[in-house]
Amino acid sequence: MTTATAQIWTGGPDFECREIPLPELAAGEAMIRLTTATICGSDRHTVAGRRSAACPSILGHEGIGVVTETRRDDLTVGQRVVSSVTTTCGTCANCARGLTAKCSSVEKVGHEPLDGPWPLSGTYATHLHLRAGQTVAPVPDSVPDALASTAGCAAATVMAVLEAAGDLTGRRVLVNGIGMLGTIAVIAARARGAAHVIACDPAPRSRELAAGVADETIAPGGTHLVDVAFELSGVAAGVDACLASLDIGGTAVLAGSVTPGPEVVIDPEWVVRGWRTITGVHNYEPRHLIEAVDFLAAEGHRLPTDRIFGGPVTLEQLPAQFAYPDGTLRTVVEIQRVSGESNR
Amino acid sequence: MTTATAQIWTGGPDFECREIPLPELAAGEAMIRLTTATICGSDRHTVAGRRSAACPSILGHEGIGVVTETRRDDLTVGQRVVSSVTTTCGTCANCARGLTAKCSSVEKVGHEPLDGPWPLSGTYATHLHLRAGQTVAPVPDSVPDALASTAGCAAATVMAVLEAAGDLTGRRVLVNGIGMLGTIAVIAARARGAAHVIACDPAPRSRELAAGVADETIAPGGTHLVDVAFELSGVAAGVDACLASLDIGGTAVLAGSVTPGPEVVIDPEWVVRGWRTITGVHNYEPRHLIEAVDFLAAEGHRLPTDRIFGGPVTLEQLPAQFAYPDGTLRTVVEIQRVSGESNR
Repeated sequence: MTTATAQIWTGGPDFECREIPLPELAAGEAMIRLTTATICGSDRHTVAGRRSAACPSILGHEGIGVVTETRRDDLTVGQRVVSSVTTTCGTCANCARGLTAKCSSVEKVGHEPLDGPWPLSGTYATHLHLRAGQTVAPVPDSVPDALASTAGCAAATVMAVLEAAGDLTGRRVLVNGIGMLGTIAVIAARARGAAHVIACDPAPRSRELAAGVADETIAPGGTHLVDVAFELSGVAAGVDACLASLDIGGTAVLAGSVTPGPEVVIDPEWVVRGWRTITGVHNYEPRHLIEAVDFLAAEGHRLPTDRIFGGPVTLEQLPAQFAYPDGTLRTVVEIQRVSGESNR
Repeated sequence: MTTATAQIWTGGPDFECREIPLPELAAGEAMIRLTTATICGSDRHTVAGRRSAACPSILGHEGIGVVTETRRDDLTVGQRVVSSVTTTCGTCANCARGLTAKCSSVEKVGHEPLDGPWPLSGTYATHLHLRAGQTVAPVPDSVPDALASTAGCAAATVMAVLEAAGDLTGRRVLVNGIGMLGTIAVIAARARGAAHVIACDPAPRSRELAAGVADETIAPGGTHLVDVAFELSGVAAGVDACLASLDIGGTAVLAGSVTPGPEVVIDPEWVVRGWRTITGVHNYEPRHLIEAVDFLAAEGHRLPTDRIFGGPVTLEQLPAQFAYPDGTLRTVVEIQRVSGESNR
């Protein structure tokens, strides 16, 4: 095989299915034949014009596949793997102090221009070209394709978000915004020993996702004092609600606010006298991808996958899925069926 | 000796020097004969009416003395010690999770009413009654009285503030507000391996305190990107400046804002995309008192003590010192001269 088939996003709602030559691998690189991708909401924002992105490009940053070629010592052909969204240089100032997600020369899966040095960078294609400096995690057979596909974005980000809050043992936790990340956060917080986990979302349908796994599901409003609040909605009112929920010594981890929005007001005395902390997380570090796979293997069965995943659709059906979303959190794209089994 | 001599604060600028009966010690308690106290700025705020406090009471929460009687296993008569400002129960929810500074039944040195259960609670007296649950740290002979006296408030608080920022090795640090805490913070940050420490204060006289110890001293304004900003001024503009100084991954530790003041505005996207952290510290934990004494023993010689300390005055002269402040950061009160040497 010398070409990959890819859905090229050409702007607005338009995609074009094209053959892309497979590149010759450089040292430290590998090729993955993708079996499944999942459509993350941020790609829908991009296609809808609410988020700027390189164009034309191959979108998609959640995917799982099999190594078909490798010039990395840590990978072998045939391994079933997921990869990190970011490539990192390991030597810039941010990398040197452990903030590789903010590498000054960062490149990101599903974010690079087709005419740049990394055309085959998205998961809406039959192949993903792994660059040097990308973390790769092998996936146990017990984790189904669709679930594993979410490791590279949703699950790994939640691992970073949880880490930012410190030890959750015995803590009262609020998760604000119950989408893919929020549902994972609820389950992961409980798995890490949280004493009481409250899932908050204005939409009844979203609250239902957490109904079986949270200790309590609530609509915004009311007073719920907690030790840790995870803000995953990106809505200013959600940020305010998370801050207002912080008891003495409490920490709010903001992760949803990735687009410009209203500012929020804080009272420095309330921060100081209350030993309170407000901290931000964007993307994640290599260790969080490994943790994400471990989490999905151990706790993935608690996710209400029948309500999370839509599809499956084929790569050819992908453009229609953007034009007419199925309303699920993650539409599953079956790229290459393996051994005749469903990837769902 | 059956009584202590104490300066009782009776409201406004008024003090009354009185004899107070020494209490019978309960289990876990001890009596310290104070040799030196230092006047912390917050007592000046109290006497000037800018801060509410129990009245009548014995003020003073920085002091050093010698154990004269003990019902604690960890103390012996004759030991030269400083004590923590707070007493903690060790069992309430806040204590249980390691936030003893926020103990729900906290009592504080220099803050308790004369007619309450702990009259002999301030350091403007010949004796300090140590309660159960108060941390006590022995002081090496190498640390002079006045310097050691600051351990219980200024130096221990700075230790808590530094801890909140995490590892300082190689970090660029801004210290905003160069008073007693700021000067200690500059020296301590360097001692903990900070790569570059900037001391910021609008007053030239304050900046001079840091001139010999900071890498750079600046007036507010200008752009100085740092990894860690310590806000010790309590002024809203200082909080804003500290936040504005945070580079990617940066942490602002707020500790100065202990009175009501203007709110500050933050942009959630800036917090999230920049992995930034805003955290508050008020008072300190037991370990920070121990660290403070260690710090003063190792690094105290770097403090410009000739410019920090005023006095000494006697306990009898204390009221005049409040009416006519000498303008120094810490006026030294010599309570009982030991072995004919100066305590300064």
